Formats: sequence, structure tokens, C-alpha cells
Amino acid sequence: RVQTPLRRWKCPGSQTTFLFVVTWNLHWRGGFAWDRSLLHFNWHPVLMVSGLFFKLVHAGMMFVALLLSMLGLSAVFDFHQGVNIPNLYSVHSWVGISTVFLFSSQWILGLVGFLLPCSPPWIRSSLKPVHIWMGKMILIFSLASCISGINEKLLLTLNGMSAAMYSELPVEAVFVNFLGMLIVAFGVSVFGILFVKKWQRPEDGSENARVSYQRRSRSAVAICNILVHN
Amino acid sequence: RVQTPLRRWKCPGSQTTFLFVVTWNLHWRGGFAWDRSLLHFNWHPVLMVSGLFFKLVHAGMMFVALLLSMLGLSAVFDFHQGVNIPNLYSVHSWVGISTVFLFSSQWILGLVGFLLPCSPPWIRSSLKPVHIWMGKMILIFSLASCISGINEKLLLTLNGMSAAMYSELPVEAVFVNFLGMLIVAFGVSVFGILFVKKWQRPEDGSENARVSYQRRSRSAVAICNILVHN
Repeated sequence: RVQTPLRRWKCPGSQTTFLFVVTWNLHWRGGFAWDRSLLHFNWHPVLMVSGLFFKLVHAGMMFVALLLSMLGLSAVFDFHQGVNIPNLYSVHSWVGISTVFLFSSQWILGLVGFLLPCSPPWIRSSLKPVHIWMGKMILIFSLASCISGINEKLLLTLNGMSAAMYSELPVEAVFVNFLGMLIVAFGVSVFGILFVKKWQRPEDGSENARVSYQRRSRSAVAICNILVHN
Repeated sequence: RVQTPLRRWKCPGSQTTFLFVVTWNLHWRGGFAWDRSLLHFNWHPVLMVSGLFFKLVHAGMMFVALLLSMLGLSAVFDFHQGVNIPNLYSVHSWVGISTVFLFSSQWILGLVGFLLPCSPPWIRSSLKPVHIWMGKMILIFSLASCISGINEKLLLTLNGMSAAMYSELPVEAVFVNFLGMLIVAFGVSVFGILFVKKWQRPEDGSENARVSYQRRSRSAVAICNILVHN
């Protein structure tokens, strides 16, 4: 297979490269500025490899989301222990805990497969479609978890100790029902974006990848020209 | 654009063609047999246009599914009326009624766009991606409806008038929780199949469509050869 420039960006160790470039410029080269000084130049090597950074941002954001969902789990387990309610009895809890389990597995597999510099290219290329598919599945799992969780909370709370039953649709119930619809609408929008072929990252080495790379190169040259001439 | 044989199969009126061919052979040509008689031949024109039939089977099965879900809705509305429970208060009912609404719209749009012989080709080609995307969205909606509905039913029934609470996980609760997990697993499997690029129907007029058509033509020739030589 042809070693296109796009493929070179994604070779093992590329994330380490980015961290080294940033550290080098921060620690030895005086940091960054946008004032035509020497510090202005320091953006150059950093931005040229910044494409790699998005993988780190993605992994970091997913890690924060995973930590928050673990915290969310501990909130319900601790509450259950406090008032003596058994854990993991409802179908909401079964689907929910499966979601968090899949999410954790996805994150660990992603870390090992994509971020560790030592993982061989064949692992990366065979993990990629699985990772993309699992991401969509986790989103579907979490939609089902959210809707069933909202329904469970309103049924247990409003029918238990509230002045108005859920079926009388107090303002809280209407508000939270709308929240449920918003969550489904969000999920459907994400899938809408994912299914647009034009917005999908082209496969490495494909004709589309080459065209996309050339287009990005032309944009980079255009931006450089503007910066140089102003 | 080139008028490939595949495109010809999908031109307006193709479904009518199929119905006419079947009617002609049933009514005037004596029906069908597989006994080397004249009736044996009658399969020939029917099978050659049978590709069209799958659209009718799909539409018919979806119509039955839609009728069954309407019947399912009337079951809950009638029950509510019988014991004086308000309709459409829970987030389950909101997501569920949206699912049936989207499903009905999808079916009517599909009927008008794909099955009516008079619908122009530009409507068919612009409706196709919307139809495929809406189908996936309706599946996600119905998964969220099923899980929240199962959770609601078990909470209301077991916590209301049953000997064992939902949280005590009687056999019924475990069984129905597993049903919920099975439904999610089914949905995830369907999406797994849909995301396999190799199994996707190639776009009309694309290189893949031509290859696929040639491959099917070769298969048809091979089957004919076997039939003729035996």
C-alpha cells in the first residue's frame, strides 16, 4: 500500500510526537505568541502536528464522561445503601450498567489500540471499524438507559410521595418528559450527522483520502499565504 | 447517467409490471408448475421480474407491523379508559407515540415515493437516503420505547398489587428484564448488519452496482445451465 502523507500522520507514536513538540517549544523555546517574534514561529511545528491532538482530546473527553458516569453510578448505589433499596433490579439498571461496562471496555480498548505508541498497525486498522460501531451501539444503549431511567424516577417519585401523581402531569412531569424527548432528539441528530457520507473521514489510502488531503493542503497553503502577505 | 440494467428494474411502474405478469400467468396461462410442462415456463417471466417483489414484501410486512402497533396502542388506550387512567402522561408514552407516528409517516411516504408507479424518479432518488435514515431512527425510538415500557409495566404491576416487589426480583422480573436485554441485543445486531459495508445495496450506476449486477447475471446463467442440463 502507498504510504500517503495522511497515513504518516497516523503512524504509531504520533501522539508522543505531538507531546514532544509541545514540551520542546514550551520548555526550551520560550512558549508561544502571535506577535511576529521568534515565539510566533513556535506555533508552526505544533500546529503542523496538531491533527494528532484531536485523538487525545477525544480520549480525554470520553475519559471525563466515563468518570462522570462512574460517579453517577456511585450516587445511586450509595443512595440505595442509605435507604436499604436493593441494587440492579430494574431493566433500566441492567441496560444502564451494560452501557457503562461497554463504555469502559471501549475506552480501555481505544487507549491500548490507538494511543499506546507500541500497538502495531494491524491492531489499529482492525480495531477501527469495531470502535466506530461500538461507539454507535453505546449511544443507543445510553438513549434506552436515559428514557427508562427518567420514566422510572418519575413513576417512583411522583406516585410515591408527591402531591400530584405522574398521570396528573404536574409541571415537573411535563418538563422532564420534554427532557426525555430532547435526549432522543439529540441521539437522532448525532446519528443524522454520522450517516452523512460526505462528513465521514475517508478511508486511509482511498481516492477520497487523497482528494481530502490535497484539499486540506491547498487550504493550509491559502491560510499561510494570507498570514504571510498581511 | 448510464441506464444500467439495474436501473431499468427500478423504473416507475416496475411494481405494476410484476403484478401484471403474475395476473397474466395465473388468469390466462393456467398458473404455475415445476413439471417441464407449459406451466413450468410460466415461472420464467415471473421470476425474472421478482426482484421487484421484495419491495412489495417489505411494504407489506411493514404494513402488518404498523397495524399491529396500532392495535397495541388501542389496547392500552382502551385499558386506560376502562379503569380511568389518563393517556399519554409518561415519557414512555411520549417516545412510544412518536415512534408510531414516525413509523406511519415512513410507511405513507414510502408508499407514495416508491410504490406508486406515477412518482417521478427524482422523488425516488431523493427520498431513498431519507427513508433509510428514518428506518434506523425508528428502530432506535422503538428500542427506547420497549425498554422504558417494560420498566414501567414492572414498576407499576409488581410494586402495586403483587406479592413480591420489583426490587425483590421475583422470577417474572428476572424473566422480563432478560426480555429487555434481548430486545437491545436484537437492535444492536440489526445495526451490526446495517453497518457492514459489504452487505449494503450498492448505489445505482456505481462501479459496485455494475459488478454486483454482473455477478448476479452470472449466477442466474449458472442456475439456468443447471436446470437445462438436468
